[in-house]
Amino acid sequence: MTGADGTASWAEALVREHESHAVRPGREEQVLERIDRARRRRATVREEYVTMAHGAGGKATQSLIEAIFLESFRNPLLEPLEDGAVFGAGTERLALTTDSYVVSPLFFPGGNIGDLAVNGTVNDLAVCGARPLYLSAGFILEEGFPVGDLRRVVASMAVAAEVAGVQIVTGDTKVVQRGKADGCYVNTAGVGLIERPGALGVAGARPGDAVIVSGPIGEHGVTIMLARGELDIEADLISDTAPLNGLVAALLDACPEAVRCMRDATRGGVATILNEIARASGVAVVVEEDAVPVRQAVRGACELLGIDPLYVACEGRLVAVVDGAVVDTALAALRAHPLGEGAALVGRIGEDPPGLVLLKTGFGGTRIVDLLVGDPLPRIC
Amino acid sequence: MTGADGTASWAEALVREHESHAVRPGREEQVLERIDRARRRRATVREEYVTMAHGAGGKATQSLIEAIFLESFRNPLLEPLEDGAVFGAGTERLALTTDSYVVSPLFFPGGNIGDLAVNGTVNDLAVCGARPLYLSAGFILEEGFPVGDLRRVVASMAVAAEVAGVQIVTGDTKVVQRGKADGCYVNTAGVGLIERPGALGVAGARPGDAVIVSGPIGEHGVTIMLARGELDIEADLISDTAPLNGLVAALLDACPEAVRCMRDATRGGVATILNEIARASGVAVVVEEDAVPVRQAVRGACELLGIDPLYVACEGRLVAVVDGAVVDTALAALRAHPLGEGAALVGRIGEDPPGLVLLKTGFGGTRIVDLLVGDPLPRIC
Repeated sequence: MTGADGTASWAEALVREHESHAVRPGREEQVLERIDRARRRRATVREEYVTMAHGAGGKATQSLIEAIFLESFRNPLLEPLEDGAVFGAGTERLALTTDSYVVSPLFFPGGNIGDLAVNGTVNDLAVCGARPLYLSAGFILEEGFPVGDLRRVVASMAVAAEVAGVQIVTGDTKVVQRGKADGCYVNTAGVGLIERPGALGVAGARPGDAVIVSGPIGEHGVTIMLARGELDIEADLISDTAPLNGLVAALLDACPEAVRCMRDATRGGVATILNEIARASGVAVVVEEDAVPVRQAVRGACELLGIDPLYVACEGRLVAVVDGAVVDTALAALRAHPLGEGAALVGRIGEDPPGLVLLKTGFGGTRIVDLLVGDPLPRIC
Repeated sequence: MTGADGTASWAEALVREHESHAVRPGREEQVLERIDRARRRRATVREEYVTMAHGAGGKATQSLIEAIFLESFRNPLLEPLEDGAVFGAGTERLALTTDSYVVSPLFFPGGNIGDLAVNGTVNDLAVCGARPLYLSAGFILEEGFPVGDLRRVVASMAVAAEVAGVQIVTGDTKVVQRGKADGCYVNTAGVGLIERPGALGVAGARPGDAVIVSGPIGEHGVTIMLARGELDIEADLISDTAPLNGLVAALLDACPEAVRCMRDATRGGVATILNEIARASGVAVVVEEDAVPVRQAVRGACELLGIDPLYVACEGRLVAVVDGAVVDTALAALRAHPLGEGAALVGRIGEDPPGLVLLKTGFGGTRIVDLLVGDPLPRIC
């Protein structure tokens, strides 16, 4: 499904996937039953070797996580498979999260691997409802990596940490021989303190809830693709990488009891988050295609790439499910924050069909938005 | 100083280093003054490109950390440069630590990258005086890595976590193209709870204190070198990788107020830890060479490699500085634990010369044991 460079034939696969799931009169029930059957199967990894798709955030990643990591590490804290784990430590409730960053190129319009790594971990903590406090930083450097580039990455991390109000308090550096890495990989882990009561989680969505995104989607992913020079187009786009802890706090302050779950839409994009919510909550997520904010430059690049912007990574956009009764309050709170000016109501939670994401298209049709197959955008974070 | 494969000419460099620092009558003051002058210099990274030595745990690593990471991230929690950071979160005191693992080969006698990664982070928390609780796991996989090998690594992590009494509660997987990694790299970060009063740290050693190691040194590093087949010898050695939290608890229970600092001696070996203690505390560390436990097989391999076992990594050995008055109690507590049977008093803390580690050799001589130059044992963890 995925070629050696991680991009070949992905568009084709995606189109096939969508066509096979297209909800046409008469075939609908049959299709739903087939999807349901496939999803009930115990997760397995059939491949003998790791492919790029295992890192793409879609179906293969999910199988890998469920069949290998969850199977071996199984414990109640890991099982929700949220962006971070929430646990008690002494008398406090804390969250812990981690992400490794392998983005290529290391420097791109709007950021670099350093601020991306800090913002990503800050965001994973924030969407767990934690106040991000302390980060660790682990570097894997390739022999021959320019020390000047490392200085730039590290300086960006320091600035990003200051902006987000967190401290990088511990770290580690490893060096591997030439040809055993790609310049610089960064891991950040983070600890946050949960100070608000109540539980947030993808299993908390209920029929009648509203689905909100905090701004235009897909900018990070498209920026990275353009920065690689693989597309012969120029667009005035920069990555949306940003720390979301302030925006999240604004939302939780405005409607403290009415937020069901929040996620930052990274690998796999908004579509992947919505699928996780639909499955975990056993609800239908019904999205209005025309309501999803997408900048013209992103839409144009996505058309050339043959990919739906719903699958393209953001690094500073929030997806939130809130009680339908407070949607105006929630939108107003988000729009009052500089990072949420473009917030929009994009859909509603329904009852049927449970576990699926449906997209109502501008042409009056409906199609199922499934998890991603293959890896259309390798190494975007 | 270091060849492309990270090993060339290191032995030569080490010998030169030792010879130049050898304390001979008449030259002693001159040498000490020169060393002192060099150490007062503000840390700089003169190299334009990252070398294997920057990851070896010795002088180059120290410069990189001080001149780049500490310079940018500077904050009071990072500054002690301990194995983990200790901070308050709400009403609790916690520790956070991280390590990336790039060991080659991935599987070796006595363990693999998976249990090494779990034990390493458990140990970093334990030596901060924290009870290790929760770990994160981040994987960077190379396209084409056998899924079966990943299963083995993950299964070992699960077993190691169970043995250490910790849970792996969150994780992340990235995949990079062939030739951009070396099969599998693992990052673990960990959170522990500090339940005992008092501060531990490399700056806490005082003249009269005793220096203890918990067992024979250098077994992990030599096992890795032999597993690579780079030496044409066979030896009945396995890695000492083990979780030290039980052993640390036994020591702290036995002499709660008398432990100044603890470290696990990984990259750079016992010599590096002792140098950190000598510098941070402004004391002399005087080690009796004949008192340092080294198995015959390790000694033999080290002779062939031309390296001092004091610089070879352990992954399950504790270096502890305790009040000289309780040394017998401390040794008895360590020896009563399966992982501390070979514990030995190896030296004393003195006043002069401050900041240096002196080795009293079996032949009645004294030499300075400085930080490592170059990278004699690349990618041992």
